Amino acid sequence: MIIVMQPEAREAEIAAVEAKIRSHGLEVHVSRGTERTLIGAVGDERRLDPEMFDPMPGVERSMHILKPYKLVAREWHKASSVVDAGGVPIGGADVQVIAGPCSVETVPQMDTAAAGVAAAGARLMRGGAFKPRTSPYAFQGKGVEGLTMLKDAAKGHGLPIVTELMDVRMLDTFLEHEVDVIQIGTRNMQNFDLLKEVGTVDVPVVLKRGMSATISEWLMAAEYIAAGGNHRIILCERGIRTYETAYRNVLDVTAVAVLKKETHLPVIVDPSHAGGKAWMVPALSCAAVAAGADGLLIEVHPCPAEAWCDADQALAIDEFAALMDRLDAIARAIGRRVDRRVATSVTPAAPIAPDAKEAA
Amino acid sequence: MIIVMQPEAREAEIAAVEAKIRSHGLEVHVSRGTERTLIGAVGDERRLDPEMFDPMPGVERSMHILKPYKLVAREWHKASSVVDAGGVPIGGADVQVIAGPCSVETVPQMDTAAAGVAAAGARLMRGGAFKPRTSPYAFQGKGVEGLTMLKDAAKGHGLPIVTELMDVRMLDTFLEHEVDVIQIGTRNMQNFDLLKEVGTVDVPVVLKRGMSATISEWLMAAEYIAAGGNHRIILCERGIRTYETAYRNVLDVTAVAVLKKETHLPVIVDPSHAGGKAWMVPALSCAAVAAGADGLLIEVHPCPAEAWCDADQALAIDEFAALMDRLDAIARAIGRRVDRRVATSVTPAAPIAPDAKEAA
Amino acid sequence: MIIVMQPEAREAEIAAVEAKIRSHGLEVHVSRGTERTLIGAVGDERRLDPEMFDPMPGVERSMHILKPYKLVAREWHKASSVVDAGGVPIGGADVQVIAGPCSVETVPQMDTAAAGVAAAGARLMRGGAFKPRTSPYAFQGKGVEGLTMLKDAAKGHGLPIVTELMDVRMLDTFLEHEVDVIQIGTRNMQNFDLLKEVGTVDVPVVLKRGMSATISEWLMAAEYIAAGGNHRIILCERGIRTYETAYRNVLDVTAVAVLKKETHLPVIVDPSHAGGKAWMVPALSCAAVAAGADGLLIEVHPCPAEAWCDADQALAIDEFAALMDRLDAIARAIGRRVDRRVATSVTPAAPIAPDAKEAA
Amino acid sequence: MIIVMQPEAREAEIAAVEAKIRSHGLEVHVSRGTERTLIGAVGDERRLDPEMFDPMPGVERSMHILKPYKLVAREWHKASSVVDAGGVPIGGADVQVIAGPCSVETVPQMDTAAAGVAAAGARLMRGGAFKPRTSPYAFQGKGVEGLTMLKDAAKGHGLPIVTELMDVRMLDTFLEHEVDVIQIGTRNMQNFDLLKEVGTVDVPVVLKRGMSATISEWLMAAEYIAAGGNHRIILCERGIRTYETAYRNVLDVTAVAVLKKETHLPVIVDPSHAGGKAWMVPALSCAAVAAGADGLLIEVHPCPAEAWCDADQALAIDEFAALMDRLDAIARAIGRRVDRRVATSVTPAAPIAPDAKEAA
Repeated sequence: MIIVMQPEAREAEIAAVEAKIRSHGLEVHVSRGTERTLIGAVGDERRLDPEMFDPMPGVERSMHILKPYKLVAREWHKASSVVDAGGVPIGGADVQVIAGPCSVETVPQMDTAAAGVAAAGARLMRGGAFKPRTSPYAFQGKGVEGLTMLKDAAKGHGLPIVTELMDVRMLDTFLEHEVDVIQIGTRNMQNFDLLKEVGTVDVPVVLKRGMSATISEWLMAAEYIAAGGNHRIILCERGIRTYETAYRNVLDVTAVAVLKKETHLPVIVDPSHAGGKAWMVPALSCAAVAAGADGLLIEVHPCPAEAWCDADQALAIDEFAALMDRLDAIARAIGRRVDRRVATSVTPAAPIAPDAKEAA
Repeated sequence: MIIVMQPEAREAEIAAVEAKIRSHGLEVHVSRGTERTLIGAVGDERRLDPEMFDPMPGVERSMHILKPYKLVAREWHKASSVVDAGGVPIGGADVQVIAGPCSVETVPQMDTAAAGVAAAGARLMRGGAFKPRTSPYAFQGKGVEGLTMLKDAAKGHGLPIVTELMDVRMLDTFLEHEVDVIQIGTRNMQNFDLLKEVGTVDVPVVLKRGMSATISEWLMAAEYIAAGGNHRIILCERGIRTYETAYRNVLDVTAVAVLKKETHLPVIVDPSHAGGKAWMVPALSCAAVAAGADGLLIEVHPCPAEAWCDADQALAIDEFAALMDRLDAIARAIGRRVDRRVATSVTPAAPIAPDAKEAA
Repeated sequence: MIIVMQPEAREAEIAAVEAKIRSHGLEVHVSRGTERTLIGAVGDERRLDPEMFDPMPGVERSMHILKPYKLVAREWHKASSVVDAGGVPIGGADVQVIAGPCSVETVPQMDTAAAGVAAAGARLMRGGAFKPRTSPYAFQGKGVEGLTMLKDAAKGHGLPIVTELMDVRMLDTFLEHEVDVIQIGTRNMQNFDLLKEVGTVDVPVVLKRGMSATISEWLMAAEYIAAGGNHRIILCERGIRTYETAYRNVLDVTAVAVLKKETHLPVIVDPSHAGGKAWMVPALSCAAVAAGADGLLIEVHPCPAEAWCDADQALAIDEFAALMDRLDAIARAIGRRVDRRVATSVTPAAPIAPDAKEAA
Repeated sequence: MIIVMQPEAREAEIAAVEAKIRSHGLEVHVSRGTERTLIGAVGDERRLDPEMFDPMPGVERSMHILKPYKLVAREWHKASSVVDAGGVPIGGADVQVIAGPCSVETVPQMDTAAAGVAAAGARLMRGGAFKPRTSPYAFQGKGVEGLTMLKDAAKGHGLPIVTELMDVRMLDTFLEHEVDVIQIGTRNMQNFDLLKEVGTVDVPVVLKRGMSATISEWLMAAEYIAAGGNHRIILCERGIRTYETAYRNVLDVTAVAVLKKETHLPVIVDPSHAGGKAWMVPALSCAAVAAGADGLLIEVHPCPAEAWCDADQALAIDEFAALMDRLDAIARAIGRRVDRRVATSVTPAAPIAPDAKEAA
């Protein structure tokens, strides 16, 4: 950490800053420039925080030199982590696609969806049983009954399931229903009690980016989960909020490139929520894979116009199947491929990337 | 709701839209313009949603005419609501100030803070026992012990308390500790399960704006609480996230003016989190009161530089006392005053605005 | 245009709105709903503006139904426009790459750059002679001398040139120096006098998106140029400003997909300014082509670390050559290819897309 | 400037950075920490830029310690500057109000407006002769004829005029028409050629903030003007662009407080463009004065509903007069007052703040 002193800072003020640094067990390095004196704290600067120094007399500002995250940082864990998601490796050589409807509605809807996405090559199935809705008057999801419907439909086609956990009190129920991957939604990215709880279980977590979360905040949210002992974390970019009103969110492909450098965790993209319209999904999906995403989370519905929520962003099954072909071509252009092996059992697949191993 | 058809929409597509509107119990009004056909849905449009129509063939886009909130809307409840916060009326003629430290630390710290803010004229005391921290390694608050410390210190000076609830499982504990006002923090503004729970109790709620929440989303979050039966809601603007990096957030005074028009609920402002620096607090506090805020939520600490969190944004007690004088002058310039009656008991004060009444 | 009346609007107020619509030559269509009366203006609504109606008594708000742009809208010009940029077709079947240094520095630098980018397959060369710099103390470009250096270097390798015009008084000089494509920079996207002037010449214009311009504002800026008679417009997405601080801008690939639907004009992407770091350029370039961009504008420098401006975002020539191979693979995955025909003369190339034709 | 080296940076890479610093005439100070080596550049760091070091091998990132602006910085010019605007002191003890219509329309409109705003106590008059409009089809202003109309109307009531310059070629015309204060609009804040030109004349400049400009970019734009020799600069906050759609812009009162600390230049606020609706103007004006603004720029029209542009944001004359009373009360609450001396001549008023002096 560097503390920048004000131009007229007095010696006693400089000494007080030095003393505070030393009281936290770090060493001090002073540099007297022509316009400012800088005080460097040498040691584990994660014990310090700018707010410790900024209010002190004579201090202009202070700043961290190191990033605040550690367990999730590639700096400390060079190899990419591959997360085993119900037998499907995410973060390895292959691009994985998770697909399914926004919300669980009926048994026939779920069966048709499961059959369709499996046939098109998706390796996991998504579906919301608990729905975070802006309006208290909107459909809130089928609840526990929906978990059963999702699990049954997906199991019939050999697909592990991904579904959103909103309320910490439902975690046990998720485990009882054998949810393969727990999704933390964008509105709960900084619901720290929820993060702490999913940090204690041995189930992979898809952590969606908050709708205006910085990369640093997002990785710190992942750090909460990892600090609890659960390292099976998959980051999911889903578009950020900006001033633009012509579309719902702006898909941030730069984040994909930056995350692959900053963290060893897998990064997937949700193109459906990013754009908010089905016709945008193919272009955004292709862009995500081209930018280096390890997977996609795509909304697919047997009959989009009749969907109970987010109807205008779901792909029909035939549209999804056509997209899978195009995505595979994009993946191959950058030396990867879309994993479309038809699941024949629920036995975990053999690792695809021989040299990749899950974060321990 | 208005559905705008595409230029080449066919008659069958128009008919399908009409049928869908009627199936929800509304009537249809068609207007054929020179470039577009518009279909109006006449009736309670809250039963409809753009996503029902946008994916239909021939539809260009659809849009609500009415606002989505109802219980919290001034359109349906003309008189301003005055919320009784532990005997202190918020939303009436007087401006109320809530003050105290960011986090509960020690018994002496809390006693000194309570004495100081009460003497300066604050009518309620704030303090965090459970702290939402970006880093899992940062101080997370004193927890339940902190609730006791806060309540004891405040009670000694006749101050009702305001403190943040993060985890739905702690609600009963909050009630047992006689928390007078429950605060929902910025990161939980769309934690819908939490909103539903505080909607079931008879305790006032301060609902902070999400760090990039729109006015509409914020009022819909309040609608969640109201829909549960709890109408004792106080909105708190605390700065929004923008592209600017010279300060932490941008205090949105326009929101204050807009909310006073859109909703009957009281609106207060947190100038401490908005700017992030103690030296900005006086200017932002004055601006908030001048813009029409019904109250302020200010961080005050006996010794800011030693505070365990947000040290650089807390006012010292003497700074706070000086600010209270200035705020009262600003309030009087617009025909209000800052309520600084020294609390002599915990008996609810007589209503100040005779014609104001709390939302039922 | 739709005018929404307030719930208690009186008949006289409704009549006044109707009269105002008719006074502009449009017809009126009134729809009386259960909660609001809506007044539709039937006819060419571009003669009307919300600000004409919003201040009238009894009006709640008013809104356009149609988009404000016309000449650049795909609605009125279905076929994609192909712009002839010094003999290179932009907007046709092939993806075109424009490359070169941020600023013109020296004759050897320009010659090496021109040779390198031509050999790697770029069809046009970029280079700044006039530089918009945040600081008045920073290098402001070589000026007119730089135009000559750029033209000479590029001509030697059969490359048309693209360079930025900042000052309306320099337009004649640009024409004299045979600038093949005029670039309007992000800070001048709404410099309307400059737009009007380049609208009067017969030279293609690359119009960069303002750093926080909406799609609508951007297309209206293009409409300014088209309204002057110059339809040879190429839109260039270069990243937008958001709250994120981990990188300079957020490359908005959603904009590419939306623009291809909204306008017939070609859309290219500048991945160098978007991310601000050379190591991000490959991922962003691939994402842009995968999303449907018609071309790229990439900064390439013979020795990036020695560049006089934006040194940290330029690719070295060998990095650029490697990227070109990958881009071509991505383009082929979506049925296109990168046009890398070595230019043998300055004779305009034959059109590649037989059915495409330039906007007249 | 501090250069942070990568964890594995080699000695030769450290030496190369040191050599580069020394080659620019600064000294080097190296600090070897436990996780990173830091290299400090001691001397006038304005000669250096992060982009000089970031692309060098072994460098992680580099950052300025000092602010990039100098002439406009309070650090180097402690006393607040008072700018003489046609005889009216801006930036002194009194708050000044500039008022008038959005655009110059007719002689009677201007005369009525001038009489009204002067009677209400405005000391300067605004009015646009050249209008920056998003659409090429919208009214573009009366042009030179409008300048004459504005000057004549204002002169009749002893009011200096403020009007926007868009095109550098019109500067001489502005001088011939005795424009007292030149306004640079939000879209031209980084039109560097325009800034350079107004830097050469001896006329005060109101520099509006770009619609998504940072404080630093804004002060650097002012630095452009000052670097040309013209120190008579008035900064004008006018709302910034955010994600919020319930109002046009977010008035950034935090900017007012921050600017008063960072620069010695006067800061005024345009509440009309900030909110975009007349009913918001009083609340925003009060907030601005309470936050410490030195003046306001308010749109006033004899008949707002008939205004040719921005009709929904102009105050009527009686509304403006009522607001002036309220503003004066707010100003007095913080120890200032609104200067409402009726102008009896065009002779410059005596300085109000005896100790204030204009920036030389």
